[in-house]
Amino acid sequence: MSYYSPSIEKLIEAFERLPSIGHKTAVRLAFHMLDATEEETNEFISAITNAKKNLKYCSQCFNISDTDPCPICAGAKRDHNVICVVEDVRDIIAMERTHEFKGVYHVLHGSISPMNGIGPDDIKIKELLARIQANPEIKEIIVATNPRVEGEATAMYISKIIKTLGVKVTRIAHGIPVGGDLEYTDEVTLTKALEGRHEL
Amino acid sequence: MSYYSPSIEKLIEAFERLPSIGHKTAVRLAFHMLDATEEETNEFISAITNAKKNLKYCSQCFNISDTDPCPICAGAKRDHNVICVVEDVRDIIAMERTHEFKGVYHVLHGSISPMNGIGPDDIKIKELLARIQANPEIKEIIVATNPRVEGEATAMYISKIIKTLGVKVTRIAHGIPVGGDLEYTDEVTLTKALEGRHEL
Repeated sequence: MSYYSPSIEKLIEAFERLPSIGHKTAVRLAFHMLDATEEETNEFISAITNAKKNLKYCSQCFNISDTDPCPICAGAKRDHNVICVVEDVRDIIAMERTHEFKGVYHVLHGSISPMNGIGPDDIKIKELLARIQANPEIKEIIVATNPRVEGEATAMYISKIIKTLGVKVTRIAHGIPVGGDLEYTDEVTLTKALEGRHEL
Repeated sequence: MSYYSPSIEKLIEAFERLPSIGHKTAVRLAFHMLDATEEETNEFISAITNAKKNLKYCSQCFNISDTDPCPICAGAKRDHNVICVVEDVRDIIAMERTHEFKGVYHVLHGSISPMNGIGPDDIKIKELLARIQANPEIKEIIVATNPRVEGEATAMYISKIIKTLGVKVTRIAHGIPVGGDLEYTDEVTLTKALEGRHEL
């Protein structure tokens, strides 16, 4: 049985449906919304509607962006002959934060996962191959899918095909995170760290 | 420097302005919104707009409700001669959950707090007194403001005035919460628990 008025109840439920929001937080958010001024509420709602309306996929790299091509693909200072392949739009942000990568991206929007019925055709692999074939200047494809089973399978699949196109494919390194602890590193990571050792 | 497109950035900021939402959760919520179907988004937005449009204060108890009077004030089975005074609408829900209280409520919408410039006239005390004076049948006023400095001050202030009207005023008990631990109970609560002891 609910003790709230129907409109409050619906608002609480709407917040509860969001990820990582439990009941108590949903109640707090709902009452925050009720207390908010009309201007604040309108600002919040228009942030959602504008995002839904304005954002589109970049036709080159499938990043989400207000513009097509996205600012990275449109960037004159970027090296358009090095493509970093990532699973998700958010992975681009993580890469950009390093300030190290000056190439462009390709977002797969997922990874090959037969368990979940996701095959190579369900993610943007065809589009990646088309991009590579359309640009004979391509120097390197860096596969930066997540170091999990699905990400590794996707990396293997992609690299196999791209190699047949005669293009260099690399994979980001696995190893112990900086600040990490050997003692607490799982054996798979440690094995990868050993395999990936380099001369000092 | 931000790496997100302006529309995503604004959406993330909109979520970040909500209470108890940090940056990482805001990013997760923003991308959840972007992934949501148009129907889901519209449902979310209309939950907010409907709540803002439909909800009003009950003219009797100042509860927030879709109807005026609110379901509790309109309830035929409630004892309209016992009024429980609370600071906030959410306190009504907490009381209702006990299934013990059969009277009606009065929401003060705050507590007296000179530090924050909130005096007796800034909360719904006048309205409470008017309610009491309008109903000669009133048997008891239960003051259930929060057991903090402001809540106590408000309780004292209210009880003083109501006593002059010849109406019984009570205060909810302070003590050790059920399941609590004597060892970890602060001394003020323990003092209150001692003072409020009753014969077995």
